[in-house]
Amino acid sequence: MGPHPAVAEIRRAIRAAVADLEPGDLVLVACSGGPDSLALARATAFEAPRAGLRAGLITVDHGLQPGSAERAAAVAATGREWGFDPAEAIAVDVGTDGGPEAAARTARYAALDAAAEKHGAAAVLLAHTRDDQAETVLLGLARGSGARSLAGMAPRSGRYRRPLLDVTRATVALACQAEHLQPWHDPHNADPAYARSRVRHEALPALEAALGPGIVDALARTATLLRADADALDALAAAAAAACAAPAGLDCVRLAEQPGAIRTRVLRTAAIAAGSPAGDLTAGHVEALDALVIAWRGQRWVDLPGAVRALRSCGTLVFVGPPEENSP
Amino acid sequence: MGPHPAVAEIRRAIRAAVADLEPGDLVLVACSGGPDSLALARATAFEAPRAGLRAGLITVDHGLQPGSAERAAAVAATGREWGFDPAEAIAVDVGTDGGPEAAARTARYAALDAAAEKHGAAAVLLAHTRDDQAETVLLGLARGSGARSLAGMAPRSGRYRRPLLDVTRATVALACQAEHLQPWHDPHNADPAYARSRVRHEALPALEAALGPGIVDALARTATLLRADADALDALAAAAAAACAAPAGLDCVRLAEQPGAIRTRVLRTAAIAAGSPAGDLTAGHVEALDALVIAWRGQRWVDLPGAVRALRSCGTLVFVGPPEENSP
Repeated sequence: MGPHPAVAEIRRAIRAAVADLEPGDLVLVACSGGPDSLALARATAFEAPRAGLRAGLITVDHGLQPGSAERAAAVAATGREWGFDPAEAIAVDVGTDGGPEAAARTARYAALDAAAEKHGAAAVLLAHTRDDQAETVLLGLARGSGARSLAGMAPRSGRYRRPLLDVTRATVALACQAEHLQPWHDPHNADPAYARSRVRHEALPALEAALGPGIVDALARTATLLRADADALDALAAAAAAACAAPAGLDCVRLAEQPGAIRTRVLRTAAIAAGSPAGDLTAGHVEALDALVIAWRGQRWVDLPGAVRALRSCGTLVFVGPPEENSP
Repeated sequence: MGPHPAVAEIRRAIRAAVADLEPGDLVLVACSGGPDSLALARATAFEAPRAGLRAGLITVDHGLQPGSAERAAAVAATGREWGFDPAEAIAVDVGTDGGPEAAARTARYAALDAAAEKHGAAAVLLAHTRDDQAETVLLGLARGSGARSLAGMAPRSGRYRRPLLDVTRATVALACQAEHLQPWHDPHNADPAYARSRVRHEALPALEAALGPGIVDALARTATLLRADADALDALAAAAAAACAAPAGLDCVRLAEQPGAIRTRVLRTAAIAAGSPAGDLTAGHVEALDALVIAWRGQRWVDLPGAVRALRSCGTLVFVGPPEENSP
């Protein structure tokens, strides 16, 4: 008798995600002990040896909830039991930058990066599912900053790989059941203080009620398609920026020949390179820059966040950065 | 004392939308008698003569609700009172194709097109607001078919112009109040049988609760940005298709050099041109076609909706259409 279909689906996903690695390579699984990452770990413990790979497990103790250290130790112990080597619990200090979710994320990835370096891992597997991807797209929608903010999470990014990005949370739950796993359910996931939790428990069900049950799939598909769009347009914008380079800035005549989607990307990138902080640069700023290029009627300049000024001079768009800090 | 700020904002939007028309040109306003189109009509009655334009008003009687003929006649009478000439109520027969909303839309645009032709109108103004745009983006999200389905409504498309696309529904309501207009509130707009009504009254409030009050603006911005992306990528795909044209199909080697976002658009367009119905062609079909181009391991063919088959032969992707209807 073969494995449960849900278990088989997860194993197949992992097999595909590590198919390019070399025998003897080390794969680390990032595991919180929740259903998704526990199912990922279980299936990796099964698949890695069959693919000639070594498998390790890292669990990060964020220290944000009572008992988190004991729980992390228990996850690491389960990892050792399943044959992971190394199987480590790493305690981190979560700061406050960007809010509680972003700060925890920053601390977590720093710990995973350090562990990957220390152990010489070829890849780190993350357990994000299709449902997580749909939530990420909705969270990105709130930013309203175009294709890149709707592109969700990448299947691969540097050393990180997300084998479960096409697997639903429901499949993961079935696999946990079939394997008699005892996942931990993070109370933060149900806490309406967190935007992701509100998206999961309120926004997505409301969207599903209004638009039909296919919304999670539609959001995940949107991420894949818009990621491809954003990649293509970013590459074209980089080529256009090179082709429009003038001695002191950008050649407005050549830039004006580009379509809007490319122009705005070239302008945004140039403004950031000149010192304007990406997070403060709005679509309105980029529109004002674009008007200097395609609707110039003698405007003098556009002031941007970070004390950067863009001005059109003799057909060239010039960015003047902020004065050097500590300059005399 | 100048006009109420909300009235001034709407007038400015109309002024900008008709600035390119010639003196004496006829502008038609499509007016249901609802708040948005009544405010649009009122402001157009004010602005058109000042811009040297003639202004007409068309109201479409869909015949779907009791009293609709009387209401349409009353809207036309108001139009005449405000100086619109022509000011006509046009009764249409709404079919059933594509569901009640799509069928009403089809009948409405056919009537507006016919009126525009008959009166020689240079432009037809539609009253869609920024809130309508946000709802359209969410409705498109459910399709999950990429940038174009999230691009919302165009500010201009053929003879149609949407001057209020940057104006909120709240501004329109204020303008109606300030001008003492008595708009009609279509009960369909509050009827949960309609997807748009569910989006307006359930999905958007839930998203706002989860993600913050800026969601309508974010969705409208998304539409603008993704429309620009989709336009640029469609144009690039058309150029790539021409560059990859082989005697009997598409040159796979040259097509494989294109980024994914362009390849998938070239393939989708080619499949539709070969007779595969656009509505049935999924991202999965296009992915299978793409595998023939970039991951060919001897696959024989891909069958597509509409009895179209795509096969790779001597490095060329060939589409074989369905047999001619009524062929001997």
